[in-house]
Amino acid sequence: MAESWSFLDTSEPNFRPLVVIELAKGTKEETIKWFTKRIVDKKANGGAQLLVKPLVTENGDENIYLVGASHLRLLLGAETVGLVKECNDNSMRTFTYSSRKTCKDFADDNHSFLTMAECQYIIKHELENLRAKDEKMIPGYPQAKLYPGKSIVRRLLTSGILVQIFPLHDREELKKLRHSWYGRVKVGYQPLDEIRSYFGETIALYFGFLEYFTFALIPMAVIGIPYYVFAWEDYDKYVMFATFNLLWSTVILEVWKRICAIMTYRWGTLLMKRQFEEPRPGFHGVLGINPITGREEPVYSSVKRQMRIYLVSLPFVCLCLYFSLYVMMIYFDLERWALDYHEENESNFSSLMLFVPSIIYAVVIEIMNRIYRYAAEFLTSWENHRLESSYQNHLILKVLVFNFLNCFASLFYIAFVLVDMKLLRQSLATLLITSQILNQFVESLLPYWLQKRHKRRMKKRMWSLKTDTDLSLVEQVNLEKEMGTYFGTFDDYLELFLQFGYVSLFSCVYPLAAVFAVLNNITEIYSDALKMCRVYKRPFAEPTANIGVWQLAFETMSVISVVTNCILIGMSPQVNALFPDSKMDLILTVALVEHLLLAIKFIMAFVIPDKPKDIQIKLAKLEFESLEALKQQ
Amino acid sequence: MAESWSFLDTSEPNFRPLVVIELAKGTKEETIKWFTKRIVDKKANGGAQLLVKPLVTENGDENIYLVGASHLRLLLGAETVGLVKECNDNSMRTFTYSSRKTCKDFADDNHSFLTMAECQYIIKHELENLRAKDEKMIPGYPQAKLYPGKSIVRRLLTSGILVQIFPLHDREELKKLRHSWYGRVKVGYQPLDEIRSYFGETIALYFGFLEYFTFALIPMAVIGIPYYVFAWEDYDKYVMFATFNLLWSTVILEVWKRICAIMTYRWGTLLMKRQFEEPRPGFHGVLGINPITGREEPVYSSVKRQMRIYLVSLPFVCLCLYFSLYVMMIYFDLERWALDYHEENESNFSSLMLFVPSIIYAVVIEIMNRIYRYAAEFLTSWENHRLESSYQNHLILKVLVFNFLNCFASLFYIAFVLVDMKLLRQSLATLLITSQILNQFVESLLPYWLQKRHKRRMKKRMWSLKTDTDLSLVEQVNLEKEMGTYFGTFDDYLELFLQFGYVSLFSCVYPLAAVFAVLNNITEIYSDALKMCRVYKRPFAEPTANIGVWQLAFETMSVISVVTNCILIGMSPQVNALFPDSKMDLILTVALVEHLLLAIKFIMAFVIPDKPKDIQIKLAKLEFESLEALKQQ
Repeated sequence: MAESWSFLDTSEPNFRPLVVIELAKGTKEETIKWFTKRIVDKKANGGAQLLVKPLVTENGDENIYLVGASHLRLLLGAETVGLVKECNDNSMRTFTYSSRKTCKDFADDNHSFLTMAECQYIIKHELENLRAKDEKMIPGYPQAKLYPGKSIVRRLLTSGILVQIFPLHDREELKKLRHSWYGRVKVGYQPLDEIRSYFGETIALYFGFLEYFTFALIPMAVIGIPYYVFAWEDYDKYVMFATFNLLWSTVILEVWKRICAIMTYRWGTLLMKRQFEEPRPGFHGVLGINPITGREEPVYSSVKRQMRIYLVSLPFVCLCLYFSLYVMMIYFDLERWALDYHEENESNFSSLMLFVPSIIYAVVIEIMNRIYRYAAEFLTSWENHRLESSYQNHLILKVLVFNFLNCFASLFYIAFVLVDMKLLRQSLATLLITSQILNQFVESLLPYWLQKRHKRRMKKRMWSLKTDTDLSLVEQVNLEKEMGTYFGTFDDYLELFLQFGYVSLFSCVYPLAAVFAVLNNITEIYSDALKMCRVYKRPFAEPTANIGVWQLAFETMSVISVVTNCILIGMSPQVNALFPDSKMDLILTVALVEHLLLAIKFIMAFVIPDKPKDIQIKLAKLEFESLEALKQQ
Repeated sequence: MAESWSFLDTSEPNFRPLVVIELAKGTKEETIKWFTKRIVDKKANGGAQLLVKPLVTENGDENIYLVGASHLRLLLGAETVGLVKECNDNSMRTFTYSSRKTCKDFADDNHSFLTMAECQYIIKHELENLRAKDEKMIPGYPQAKLYPGKSIVRRLLTSGILVQIFPLHDREELKKLRHSWYGRVKVGYQPLDEIRSYFGETIALYFGFLEYFTFALIPMAVIGIPYYVFAWEDYDKYVMFATFNLLWSTVILEVWKRICAIMTYRWGTLLMKRQFEEPRPGFHGVLGINPITGREEPVYSSVKRQMRIYLVSLPFVCLCLYFSLYVMMIYFDLERWALDYHEENESNFSSLMLFVPSIIYAVVIEIMNRIYRYAAEFLTSWENHRLESSYQNHLILKVLVFNFLNCFASLFYIAFVLVDMKLLRQSLATLLITSQILNQFVESLLPYWLQKRHKRRMKKRMWSLKTDTDLSLVEQVNLEKEMGTYFGTFDDYLELFLQFGYVSLFSCVYPLAAVFAVLNNITEIYSDALKMCRVYKRPFAEPTANIGVWQLAFETMSVISVVTNCILIGMSPQVNALFPDSKMDLILTVALVEHLLLAIKFIMAFVIPDKPKDIQIKLAKLEFESLEALKQQ
């Protein structure tokens, strides 16, 4: 590979801008010079060997730069990041420049061999891996310290010199994608492969999961409808419904793993080797030696971090949980007040008033969730985790626990303390529907509308990824840099997770929940697609092989739902009537059934293989080949 | 490496016999010639490049061969099997011949760099990997078919030409080991590292687990003793004991993983790469193409196997379980009869008679377990699994389910159907103690005694690994080949597993169980050590990084024990007295506590890292280095 680098010509004629770098206004000349030199410099000199061009805007500012790369450079980069491509013999293999000819669709002049998302991911990777050599600071900014091996881009970002780096939209491609995704009214699957090649695997996997989950909810919804239509109140029917739900939710979560494996195998990410994880940008500490790499880098005592977690974060989370419960008690006071009012007045207005506390509470829950989210982000980042993955895990844990309690505590209270099934049903419906409406509004429609207004106010020509009017590159960049940033799939998964809770936790008292969830998810697909294509900057592609910690979160929820449903059924008067003499027998039976169901769940999860047979064989084949190759050495 | 093979001289003067090959008497000359030629032949000609010598016995038979190898050959073999050795910088690295100088204690003339167990493992690996080239059958035996790639040794074994292959004992080493292991009365740890270098990792890990488990039971035993001494019958004390037990059992299983990681890291097996698994010897099928390797090998339809499993094995297991329950009911009849007899007669004899049914039942359980074990082995081997690991998993599953039911069904019945805590305590004690005595007898003492008698009858001089009288190689081989074969750690782990069940499932009614378990395990260590050193042929070393499926089995048992203990406590009159009015509240409380305990268990299992911090760092360092090396390529 060393030879290939040498014949790389950095001054290629056909420059295709891929990534935009926005520097702070008034960045010093010497800094810009140094930074751009590092970007275009040869690999051997510690550069990234990319192409860079300033974007000259109308007012003559020179703080925006476009980064591109020659085709050859991108191919070499694809090897560095370890992309996996399909070969001529239909197997997936890690791409190497020397074996490029064996890849399907490879030709020296086929510039679409790498998708634009892949090219942008490669450039991002190369930029982030630009590392300080002997510089002690960023030239021109003595306070922005560097040490050998520190990522330059990360230091530029944390010291505010670099405002943002983002990939450019490809307006042609985006138009095509929008058309096949949500442009026409049709019944069918989403174009996941196209989404993946435009937005990368993480986002495509989210949409894949959303779609799969919606389809998986349809049987529950279909079975749930007659309960509403015929007003079935027989508990034996509810029992059947709940049992079906519990087993079904296990099956769908297991089958998802298989479908996920099929998709990510096709996309190559299932085979991608894990890269060594560098410290996250915000991580700080005293300069020390990393015991793993032996390199100089900031070190932060793990004891201090534990202290922050257990002495500050944990009490704070507990306080928030307490506050959430306090708000819940206020809600019950309101509820009681509304009931009293209704009983006193008995008017249409008063019966409408019965729903008001629930709606207010649902709105308050949403607001609290969002405020808590910021607090959790702040705290977790203050905990100073070294790795992005550990930061994410701590953040997700904090947010999940709070959201779970905040959303479901009142339902648990109604179900198991007040034992009021009617109120439970009403509360569940109000919470579910209000939160769905709020979410769709806050997440997609509001930003969309804000952006439209913003554009109009800017008195620009209508931003027309939609209309076909041609837009200059300058205009495109200027528009895109003002667009919001998509912060990843966290909120989207969280929403689905809470929805799954509403559907499964109390499914035996409110079978209609699945119907609402399906309806919501169908519009969710469209509004999320709209959000990705129209509201936000294009995000960098992020290769991934699964939905990560969310799989565990959904599985935990499905275990909890076994418990709640069994208790609910056991508490029903119909089931109680079956055991007129001995409450003890009743509860023992319920407990036995619960444990049996849990055992069946675990056995099913164990028995259903996580990967389909053919993927298993393909993976085993690759492993065998690499073992053989090792032997040949 | 290719060069190194060429200067390997197969006719080395100092031949050290390592492995014994026993052929059937009257094996044809041409077969022997062909087989020994393949063993000594050069690698390039498809041989194993080992040394082989016939053992000329007194009666002139030539059916026993000794296999050895030159030091250089063994080092090359160590690279092939992927041994991991400690380097001069104290890190563990995969051994390669070219980097041999970086290894600790390596010197060209240091023949103890590889332990004898490792040398024997290498020879076994090389022999098993002798593969047929263009031979269609074993010369001289047309019915013993071969095809390209078939392991010659496995075919020789399955067609009965090869009687056995076993490694020789090293009498000097064994004497030392015996001395430091059980030769002197001392309080202290077992010499696990010495056991490992003599018997290999699997066996050392078993003894490590046995020792660890015994130590871990001591706190339970210590807390359990006052219950017996002061005849405590307060249920609050029992509750405390049970709660302690439940949490403790989770902790010990999690901590074991860490200790296991420390040991196997030191031994190098934690880092050993998984080898590609070849079909097991007994596997048969029509010749076809393996989709993974692309090689010709027997193929057996997975549908047929599933049919055998679900249509034959499963019904058979169910039948056995039914039979076991039937026997249990007979036991209860006997029990009732003994009770009636005692009530009628009220004599010392009759009160002794009360224990007889339990003892008989315990003996019957042991017999049934052993018979079932053979049936399970037969069935699982008839299921024709392709891989040894899948065979083992199916066998373990079959045996565990049956043994669990067979041993514990009567206790469950007494506890939850008869609700007779006194009988439960008595039954538990009888079953536990009887099975422990029986096991020690059948496993070690009986074979030891049989062998002694056998030797005396052979009128040989006393087999004296013990006494220092010198024994010729011929005599040693002749003695060792008649010794029993150790079939692996399965039965030993199973015994511990059932013991763990007796200790934990009903710990809150019989705190003394842990005391008996500790006492048993202390003698078990000695009798198992005796068994390994005196009764059985030396087994081949088997590298392993953990106790495999047994970890899961123990964890499952500890989950089940949470459930049983909670129910037992809930059923106690003392706890019942706390809820005089509402049985419902009682059971709900119990269920709540149970779920809380289970949740705590899972959280603890999740929070306690499986590997200690320093091992994690060492592993991460190795991974980082290999990633860096990949980048350099």
